[in-house]
Parts: sequence; structure tokens; C-alpha cells
Amino acid sequence: MIEDKNTSKTQISDLGEFGLIDHLTKNFKIKQKSTNLGIGDDAAVLDFKNKKCVLSTDLLIEGVHFDLSYVPLKHLGYKAVIVNLSDIYAMNATATQVTISIAVSNRFPLEALEELYAGIDTAAKLYNIDVVGGDTTSSTTGLIISVTAIGYAKEDDLVYRSGANDNDLLVVTGDLGAAYMGLQVLEREKQVFKVNPNSQPDLDRYTYLIERQLKPEARKDIPELLKALEVMPTSMIDISDGLSSEVIHLCKQSKVGVNLFEEKIPLDPAVISICEEFKLNSTTVALSGGEDYELLFTIKQDDYPKIKANPNLTIIGHMTDEKSGIGLVTRANEKIELKAQGWNPINE
Amino acid sequence: MIEDKNTSKTQISDLGEFGLIDHLTKNFKIKQKSTNLGIGDDAAVLDFKNKKCVLSTDLLIEGVHFDLSYVPLKHLGYKAVIVNLSDIYAMNATATQVTISIAVSNRFPLEALEELYAGIDTAAKLYNIDVVGGDTTSSTTGLIISVTAIGYAKEDDLVYRSGANDNDLLVVTGDLGAAYMGLQVLEREKQVFKVNPNSQPDLDRYTYLIERQLKPEARKDIPELLKALEVMPTSMIDISDGLSSEVIHLCKQSKVGVNLFEEKIPLDPAVISICEEFKLNSTTVALSGGEDYELLFTIKQDDYPKIKANPNLTIIGHMTDEKSGIGLVTRANEKIELKAQGWNPINE
Repeated sequence: MIEDKNTSKTQISDLGEFGLIDHLTKNFKIKQKSTNLGIGDDAAVLDFKNKKCVLSTDLLIEGVHFDLSYVPLKHLGYKAVIVNLSDIYAMNATATQVTISIAVSNRFPLEALEELYAGIDTAAKLYNIDVVGGDTTSSTTGLIISVTAIGYAKEDDLVYRSGANDNDLLVVTGDLGAAYMGLQVLEREKQVFKVNPNSQPDLDRYTYLIERQLKPEARKDIPELLKALEVMPTSMIDISDGLSSEVIHLCKQSKVGVNLFEEKIPLDPAVISICEEFKLNSTTVALSGGEDYELLFTIKQDDYPKIKANPNLTIIGHMTDEKSGIGLVTRANEKIELKAQGWNPINE
Repeated sequence: MIEDKNTSKTQISDLGEFGLIDHLTKNFKIKQKSTNLGIGDDAAVLDFKNKKCVLSTDLLIEGVHFDLSYVPLKHLGYKAVIVNLSDIYAMNATATQVTISIAVSNRFPLEALEELYAGIDTAAKLYNIDVVGGDTTSSTTGLIISVTAIGYAKEDDLVYRSGANDNDLLVVTGDLGAAYMGLQVLEREKQVFKVNPNSQPDLDRYTYLIERQLKPEARKDIPELLKALEVMPTSMIDISDGLSSEVIHLCKQSKVGVNLFEEKIPLDPAVISICEEFKLNSTTVALSGGEDYELLFTIKQDDYPKIKANPNLTIIGHMTDEKSGIGLVTRANEKIELKAQGWNPINE
């Protein structure tokens, strides 16, 4: 038998820029009524009628935000969409569209871009959003992805970072630190692989952490849940850079202080056990790890009964007046100043 | 006398991501009523009331789209905004906002980014648009700029690529090929400079061409002019990749053919003379050069009297039925098939 060793990779330059966009986006279906026109003209046309349009954008760079040696392209495409949708949900808004621009070096065959777009498509379907535009170009080095997410909200439903008041409760969704520990596990496996390419890692114990890193979910459910519970947050932000950094943003923009209780920070048991394995402090990981894409918000004390029984929501502190400062109350009941030590892409 | 050779460049890492964004955008003023909230929250908030929202995005990569050895950063910031606004005007819409994301390597001092943002601010002021968001991150290599432009139009005013009909007149604004020839001049000077760094080029003759390359203008005036003339284009596109490529887009999306007359293509006298100097065919330069950011549109024959005297507008052909094909009628009165040979960023 003669084996066909030709893996038949297609050069993207064979398609040209417009051929490439057409090829990658031809199966994307328009789902949102607000999308009047998607890809194919000079601009997309959207219609939010009497609603406010909300819009956020992010730039992801290979070697800074992701490492293709352990991030599959499909996951990367998925995550690039999710991290932007998270910003829309953090406004208490509904996400409806994204634009995706990519720059790739010619080391990427068409099949690699198809994988990337398969991930984008999966996210678009799951979150019910339309891909309405983008740009495809070449890169002199690595892969670059720029995503703009668009959504809408009624004026009265919008929640800003600046609305927290003294005595409001500070609430976080889900649990924290898992995405960061997933990254630590993947980094460690990469080092092991460099030494012994035949090693077969048993990553079962780390499944939750690795999923949180490679396939994060944006909290589309939370604006819906809060509406159902009849709770209107006074301020809200998404947790992309680590809890401490986001708490500080809320405090500074709302001109309030906070008492954040260390013992209340929600941690998955897997995070606690892997932190022990890595000899890391789990509170530090939750405060500074980042990439959780949970939502952090404040509510009036009167709303406490409405949320107290909900397993998705954890009260982790309360706001104070500005002069009382931005404080972490430790397990030893000492109040220390909370500092932002989250991931800073400028220093990478 | 002791000379201070310390040029006192500031490291961008000293500011951190949020400090950097604050620093670069602190002087940006909100000008548009539709901008409810700009930079500083998870997302910008825009309000287009009963108008349609139009949105377009572009990714610019150092070494692919620009060469910092002859493009001043201020010009680059300016141009990055302009090329996106051009897409909004090509929808016959009003441009109102942009988001700007940048990735820079640490070889850029803060002062370089200030230059870039000074150019962005100049464009924003001149075109009356707001910078409402963005992302700032580090790059492993060169400079990357991602811009999303947003605007609005009444539903009835929007002009698509797909509306041209048989017998419509094909009209172009301004003149073509100058930006491409400006690039040729700059490339030549770069080569001369490599051989003799002390050469003092006399670029006076090339001023118009170099300005068209480094400081292009988007045709904000054209949607306004057409409204004043009471002309509603049947289709429209902006010329970024070269006339032939854009004519083909209009024809294919409108399912029509065209007779484009070579002798009608508007060329500045400087383009003609520099093409002779470079031994290039000026028609080829106009058809394939790109980066003109003029508008190409079709109008009904009945509208001819309204535009015929206008020095901004040149009729260069007429649409035909689809079967007649996409043709260039040469000066020798031969019809040849028009092919897209515009700049293709995928093949760079």
C-alpha cells in the first residue's frame, strides 16, 4: 500500500483577501433582527431602534495573549469572541454582533484559519450573535485577532462602573482563579513536553481548570437572571484582569471604598488543591489571576433577600465611604490595602 | 558647556495599561450627541435613535500596511482613522465615532505614542468624530493598529454596493493614482537614503503625491454634496484597493457589466509626469494603485444634468447588462476585460 503523505494544505494566498473572507464566513447565518446587513459591503448596517447601542473592542496578539503551542485554534477563535461578549454583558446589555479582524503570517494554511473560524462560529451560535464584518490581512510574524462586540440595552437597564454607593453589597458570579491555574498547568506541560516529547500527561484532574482557561464562558445568563430576580445592580464590571484590579476600578469610578472579605471569595475545590500543588496562595490567585470572565457587581442592601439563596452569586464584601479606603479583610480579620497586581499586557 | 544628551524618553510600561489609555486619551473631547459614553467603562454607549447604525473595521500592520522609516507616526494615526471613515462615507452615511486599539513593542517610548494619538486627535477634530474606546497592549514585534468606525444614516439614505443598474452612469470623485505614486517616491528616497544618508532630497515636485500617500482625506463632503445636488447614488464604494478592483465589486454585487473609458479616468498632471519619470503606465497606476480613498458611485442617467458641471465629479463610464462583461474601453477604442490587480494584503 502506498500511503498518501500529502496532507494537502491550502495556501491562503491562493484565495486572495476577498476569496478568503468569503470562504471563511460563507456558512455564517444572520440570527439577529438588529443585523440589517452583515459582511460584504463597505460597512455593516445595524438597527437598534429606540435602544442604546453598546460597543467594546479587544486586540489579541500571539505571544502576548496566547501561545499556540497549547491553545488549539478552534478554542482561540471561541475565546476571542467570548472575552468581548463579556464586556457587553458587564453593561447589563444583550450582545448581538461581532466584527473579527485577523492578521496571519503565511505559515498558516487555510485549514488553520478554518479551525479558528469554526471556533468563532461555535461561539456565535451558542451566544446567538452575528459576525457582521472584519478584515483579513497578512502579518509579518504571528497571529493577531481584533474583535469588536456590539449589543444593545434599554437606557434604564444599562449598568456602569460608576454607580456603586456606600453600604452597597459587592457580589461576584461563579468562582475565581481557575483560568489562571489552568494556564499554570498548561505552561508546566509545555515545559515537560520540551524535555520529553513522548510524555503522555494525565490531565484529568485538571479538566475544570484547563476548560476555564481554554474555553471560558461569558455570563450571558447573569443580566437575564438579575432581571428575573428583579435586581438592578448599581455598578458592574467583568473580571478579565483579576478580582483586585476590577474591585479597584469599581471603587475609583464610583468614588467609594470597600471591605472585601478574603474568606468569602468563591474558589472551586480544584483551585484550592492545585494551588497547594503549585505552592501558590489561592487568595492571591483569585485576586490577581484574571481571565475568569465572571461578573462583579454591587447591589443595594435591600436586594439582599432576592439573591441570597442563588448558587451563582456570592456576596464578597460591602462598599464603604471613599475615605475608608479599598481594603481586603483577611482571614485573620486584619484590613489591608487592596492592590492591583493583575496581569498587565503592557509589561509583558 | 555640557550638552544634555538625555532625550528623556518615557517608558510606556511606567504608566501601565490603564494609565497609558488615560494619558493618551485625556484630551479627547466628546463632540457627537450620539455618544452617550466614551472611554472608561466596559463598553461605549451610543444612541442613534431611529437611524441605522453603520460600522466598519480595519487592521493595519507595520511592515504590511505601513513602513515607519518614512511614515511619521502622527500621519499614521491620522491615516488609520481616515481610511475607516472612508468606508462609512461610502455607505452615504455620517461618521460619528471610532475605537482605536494599538499593540506596540517596548521599543516605542511614550512620546512616539503621543505622536500617533496626536494624529488620531487631528483626524477626530477635522472629521468631527469621537474616539469612544479601544485597547492598548504590547506587541512582540511591530506596531499594530485596529480601528472600528461607526456612523449613522436614515434608512432611505443608505447606499449599497449592490444597487447599480444597466445604463447607470459610473462616477468617481477627485483624481486617482497619486497616493500610489507618492509611495513610489517615498520608497525610492528610502533606497537613496540607505546608500547616502546625507542626501538632501528635493521633494517639492512630489508634494501633492506624498500628501496623498501620507495624509489622505476621506470624502466626508461627497454625501453632503450629493444631498445638496439632490442626487441619490444607486450604488457606492470607496477606492482603497484601486479603481479596477472596486469597479469589479460594484459590478459583481449589482449583477451588471460596465464600459469604463480609459480616457475619462481623472489623473492629476503630477501623476502623469511622475509616471513618465518612473516609466509606469498612468492608467495602470490609476486602476491598480489603491489608497486614493475617493468614492466611486453610480447614478441614474436622469441625474446627469445635476452633476455634469461639478469639478469634484467625473463620469468615467456606464453600466451595461451583466452579459456584456466588465470592460475597459482603451484610448484606441478597444474593449478589454478589466482585471483586479489591486494591492492584495494577503500576498504581501
